[in-house]
Amino acid sequence: MSADRVHEVKAGMIRTGMTAIQAIVFVFAAALSCHGADLDLMPWPAQVEQRAGVLNLSVQAPRFEVTGGDERVNSAVARFKQQLAARTGVASVIGRAAGEGPLFVIHCNGKGAKVQTLGEDESYRLTVGENKAELTAANPLGILRGVQTLLQLVQPGQQGWMIPYLQVDDRPRFPWRGLMIDTSRHFIPLDVIERNLDGMAAVKLNTLHLHLSDDEGFRVESRRCPRLQERGSDGLFYTQAQIKDLIAYARQRGIRVVPEFDVPAHALSWIIAYPELSSSPVPSRMARDMTDHERPVLDPTLESTYKLLDRVLGEMAALFPDKYFHIGGDEVDSRYWDKNERIQAWMRAHNIKDSEALQAYFNQRVQKIISKHGKRMEGWDEILSPELPKDTLVQSWRGPETLAKAAHMGFQTLLSAGWYLDLMYPASQHYAVEPFSGDSASLTPAEQSLVIGGEAAQWTEYVTPEILDNRLWPRLGAIAERLWSPASVTDQASMYRRLAILSRNLEWLELTHRTSSRRMIERIAGDAPVELLETLASALEPVKEYTRGRTQSYSTELPLNRLVDAVPPESEPAREFGELVKNAQQPSARAELRLQLVRWRDNDRKLQPFLPASVFLADLAALSHDVSTLATVGLQALDAIDRGQAPAPEQRTRQLATVDESSGEHAQMQIAIAPAIRQLVESRP
Amino acid sequence: MSADRVHEVKAGMIRTGMTAIQAIVFVFAAALSCHGADLDLMPWPAQVEQRAGVLNLSVQAPRFEVTGGDERVNSAVARFKQQLAARTGVASVIGRAAGEGPLFVIHCNGKGAKVQTLGEDESYRLTVGENKAELTAANPLGILRGVQTLLQLVQPGQQGWMIPYLQVDDRPRFPWRGLMIDTSRHFIPLDVIERNLDGMAAVKLNTLHLHLSDDEGFRVESRRCPRLQERGSDGLFYTQAQIKDLIAYARQRGIRVVPEFDVPAHALSWIIAYPELSSSPVPSRMARDMTDHERPVLDPTLESTYKLLDRVLGEMAALFPDKYFHIGGDEVDSRYWDKNERIQAWMRAHNIKDSEALQAYFNQRVQKIISKHGKRMEGWDEILSPELPKDTLVQSWRGPETLAKAAHMGFQTLLSAGWYLDLMYPASQHYAVEPFSGDSASLTPAEQSLVIGGEAAQWTEYVTPEILDNRLWPRLGAIAERLWSPASVTDQASMYRRLAILSRNLEWLELTHRTSSRRMIERIAGDAPVELLETLASALEPVKEYTRGRTQSYSTELPLNRLVDAVPPESEPAREFGELVKNAQQPSARAELRLQLVRWRDNDRKLQPFLPASVFLADLAALSHDVSTLATVGLQALDAIDRGQAPAPEQRTRQLATVDESSGEHAQMQIAIAPAIRQLVESRP
Repeated sequence: MSADRVHEVKAGMIRTGMTAIQAIVFVFAAALSCHGADLDLMPWPAQVEQRAGVLNLSVQAPRFEVTGGDERVNSAVARFKQQLAARTGVASVIGRAAGEGPLFVIHCNGKGAKVQTLGEDESYRLTVGENKAELTAANPLGILRGVQTLLQLVQPGQQGWMIPYLQVDDRPRFPWRGLMIDTSRHFIPLDVIERNLDGMAAVKLNTLHLHLSDDEGFRVESRRCPRLQERGSDGLFYTQAQIKDLIAYARQRGIRVVPEFDVPAHALSWIIAYPELSSSPVPSRMARDMTDHERPVLDPTLESTYKLLDRVLGEMAALFPDKYFHIGGDEVDSRYWDKNERIQAWMRAHNIKDSEALQAYFNQRVQKIISKHGKRMEGWDEILSPELPKDTLVQSWRGPETLAKAAHMGFQTLLSAGWYLDLMYPASQHYAVEPFSGDSASLTPAEQSLVIGGEAAQWTEYVTPEILDNRLWPRLGAIAERLWSPASVTDQASMYRRLAILSRNLEWLELTHRTSSRRMIERIAGDAPVELLETLASALEPVKEYTRGRTQSYSTELPLNRLVDAVPPESEPAREFGELVKNAQQPSARAELRLQLVRWRDNDRKLQPFLPASVFLADLAALSHDVSTLATVGLQALDAIDRGQAPAPEQRTRQLATVDESSGEHAQMQIAIAPAIRQLVESRP
Repeated sequence: MSADRVHEVKAGMIRTGMTAIQAIVFVFAAALSCHGADLDLMPWPAQVEQRAGVLNLSVQAPRFEVTGGDERVNSAVARFKQQLAARTGVASVIGRAAGEGPLFVIHCNGKGAKVQTLGEDESYRLTVGENKAELTAANPLGILRGVQTLLQLVQPGQQGWMIPYLQVDDRPRFPWRGLMIDTSRHFIPLDVIERNLDGMAAVKLNTLHLHLSDDEGFRVESRRCPRLQERGSDGLFYTQAQIKDLIAYARQRGIRVVPEFDVPAHALSWIIAYPELSSSPVPSRMARDMTDHERPVLDPTLESTYKLLDRVLGEMAALFPDKYFHIGGDEVDSRYWDKNERIQAWMRAHNIKDSEALQAYFNQRVQKIISKHGKRMEGWDEILSPELPKDTLVQSWRGPETLAKAAHMGFQTLLSAGWYLDLMYPASQHYAVEPFSGDSASLTPAEQSLVIGGEAAQWTEYVTPEILDNRLWPRLGAIAERLWSPASVTDQASMYRRLAILSRNLEWLELTHRTSSRRMIERIAGDAPVELLETLASALEPVKEYTRGRTQSYSTELPLNRLVDAVPPESEPAREFGELVKNAQQPSARAELRLQLVRWRDNDRKLQPFLPASVFLADLAALSHDVSTLATVGLQALDAIDRGQAPAPEQRTRQLATVDESSGEHAQMQIAIAPAIRQLVESRP
């Protein structure tokens, strides 16, 4: 052990495993840095070794020595300087003597591929010591990842901004760490995508999967077949120039862009442009809402279908340089084929026994087109079929078992099941998803190597550009960590602490998950005191899974400007309240719980007078009332614990019945504190 | 009185002057609109007449009929649609049937001048009635002002977004309503200027005065004399293309851009580029801080000085199309001339008796140059001299008396004294500044007409781009109202209420006065709980006037990232606390005061443990302690009022001494609640 090694923190051992001496030095180091071992890093690196001392950034302007790599290294360093200035508020280096400032040595041993490839080396080593930080990597991607770690390490210290002495040896667990954004159901403008690419880079995600066509719109300019965007986009599409800008922007940040054009279903925007390729009569307009029952699929028996696909996918294959090309392939409603007599006759003539076989035939034809244009085909797990070539990539969404199945069959595969951000699950639930569990736990090492990573998926039925960031960033960091960090990194409390810091720091990248949420709540409040609405909102969450669609039909014309659209997917105050309830035996926890419960209880009385005047507030009346009722029950339970006296069984039964009655869903929201209130009632003094 | 006129609210009579019937109908209207007469308008219009009923915006997409005017009318309507979508969250009009939606009729009776001129007609009439809003104006400027009023009227209602029925007849009180931004001491990038132009347009300001050169930098590209920006800007300057963009951007918003190049003093950036024109030895670099004592001025006795000015100001006169051209002329340190023997000899030879006469000579020479290039000269009030032609415009900054003096002498004049935003005064103080008071109260009507308006001035010694918005927008709306609205509009409580709404709505224009403040406070907090720092910050304000410069020398190299830089100029919680103290005889007010005081009292104990680890927090220790002490004294005073028993005189004396001892300035901040605590102690039960 070297003399300056004061303690070692390996992944997954953040708070444990110290020797006695290390623990003593840890206290010393913690006093110095006010952080201790749990640095504000997300995703947590493969290996971190902290040392005593800090690199002071404030005395003199830092110097940079940058060598090797390709153009991305310099652009990464330029962005690092900008972001460092933004994070620290030390913008001006005019006239500061540079001679003695801390030295940032950034060295890259090689160039990367011209088009970023899956599995390129992303590892790096970062050493921070006396007046010097040194970042080395074999590939520019490692430098891109390392500067993000460096930036996350900057913190306030006794002399000003500083970075603790340490050594980080880091590399990703999986090579494919992605985010899918649906740009069809609601169009997401280029600048919104770009700021989210900055966010992805900050958490070391490396793949943006754009869902570019669906029943609601075709979102890329086709020059060969311009009818697609002319008739199929309502004017909302990316030009080819914008796509090139986007790809260049992503490349500078070490992110691949994988396009998806969903066929043969989810293809009404194609069919509106080319009605002759439909399997059934064509509606007069693209899908707007759930009452648009007719969503015909492409006719896989027509040669003209493959001719069009060849033209368009060929054009898109040239536009998007990535090796992978996603053809969707999900959720084919086979009734459109079953009801078409010509299709049925064709199937009999060609010995295709059912619609599943027909889709398999279609996929093989499309695969040949994709392959002809130099790409590897990717599709949702419905495409899984032994007839497809083994270089096909299968994206598991229906359940983790399809991941294992694909790997067993010898296909590369990606996990998305468990990471659907539109289902409004808490970060902890996404964080707990382990690719090698369940059916996948028994995969052989060779099969395991086919599991190349995963993707969070953001479908946009209920997401507009002003909502997007607030759906992604309260949880995406946790998924990014699952895909980057060793499997042993699972401490939920640490995750939530670091996710909160990340959320704050992402604001410096102009992400709007917090500002937009607050603005939307203020918009709803109108002239009502916004604190009252915030207090109510703090107890609420959007309903989970696909519940919203059952009470409020999705429509592209539905304004998404209600409280459900403004609140984060997970209530942080409710989560913290739940944590406190676990400690309700401690008087100090009960004092805090009481303060919070009194606020929730009394809020309804203050808010109710404002509700009738505004439609945006009126539908919150039941929730406001129920939160108050639940808080009242919670206070009764606290009183019982304070008295050290269990309530009579019938009283507890009454209280639990009240909790049940007051836990209903209204206005597409649920009361996030209800489970903790129940737990409080059920706890014994 | 027409049948649908339910009550009339004239400027300055917002809450008064109703007849009995009007009052009854007012209650009815208030129930309908949840607003009543005090609409969220700022600046308040010349005349408003509210009527019963509301125009519902939510049922169907609005239709627009736009006629007349020039290209600015269409661009104003396009921005109105965008901003309406942003404010309401109703972005998509895809497929909504437009046939029956509310109709916006916008008609302009004439075109405006090619280059916006001072005094062009800005009046408009806005009528909102059954399913129709009608905006008419004689000039596109009136349409630009009117759409801002229309936007401010949109509010939540029982059916969704709505606009109350009303008629507004509006016109400005003064034709010159400006904001000066110093871009020399800290450079302000183009995008920051542009978002603030959007803010200016929202409050109907019509003149942006850019202070473009000073000792710290020359901020515009000169093609004729590129040495100016090459040697005099540290690379931070606007290109001519950017200036043209800026002027076009401003024109679309009805805003004139007046450039200022400050001579003969505040001209070190010129002298660094052309040292031969200096009156004294030239330092090696531009001014960086207050210890740079040498800030030489131009030599007014050299013909080459006028030759350079002719070249550069001629170029700039062509670049900036506005009729007015500001030459600064302030704060000449005449010792540079007194000590120069050649200058003294020249003065004797030319019969110029003193430095004041020398500057007058200089100004006359410069005036001829400005005039030759087709402009009217403007300068700070030091230029005031009977020898100048009467088309010179004098900007009063040293005090209101210079405004009166200029008008008496027959000069057009502008008020800036009282509206220096860098002095950190509260909005109420700026709002109370009345151009026709003091010496100006006795002006004849003809002299009064020479007072053409005023300008808020934002000097940037302590302002970076991330700070600018938070210095402007907590107060600028109040000054804009003083310059637009009738003199009778003076209700301070109404002003603060509407200013708060304005502040919220300006966020939709991407102004950062609130988001940047919060981000900066979080940056300072580091790992300390941000609520604790926010609670402390809520009791604090930056020191006023020029106090900061005495304890913390201004330097362009000083990072402006401390709490003083993050907090607003005026503490809204402290102001509200002060209002509550006025009602301390009421038990309900005392209950609220107590809650607030307990928070401030207890905050120090929680915050202190975090302070030593960070230099950004450590210098807040004294303030945190003093706020706690003041809150403790405040609670004692409350107790006494509760008991209905005055404290013994010696106890009150002790308390007042404690207030004195705990009201010191630290870390460039003062405790904003101290005066209210003193008042509480002094109040009798």
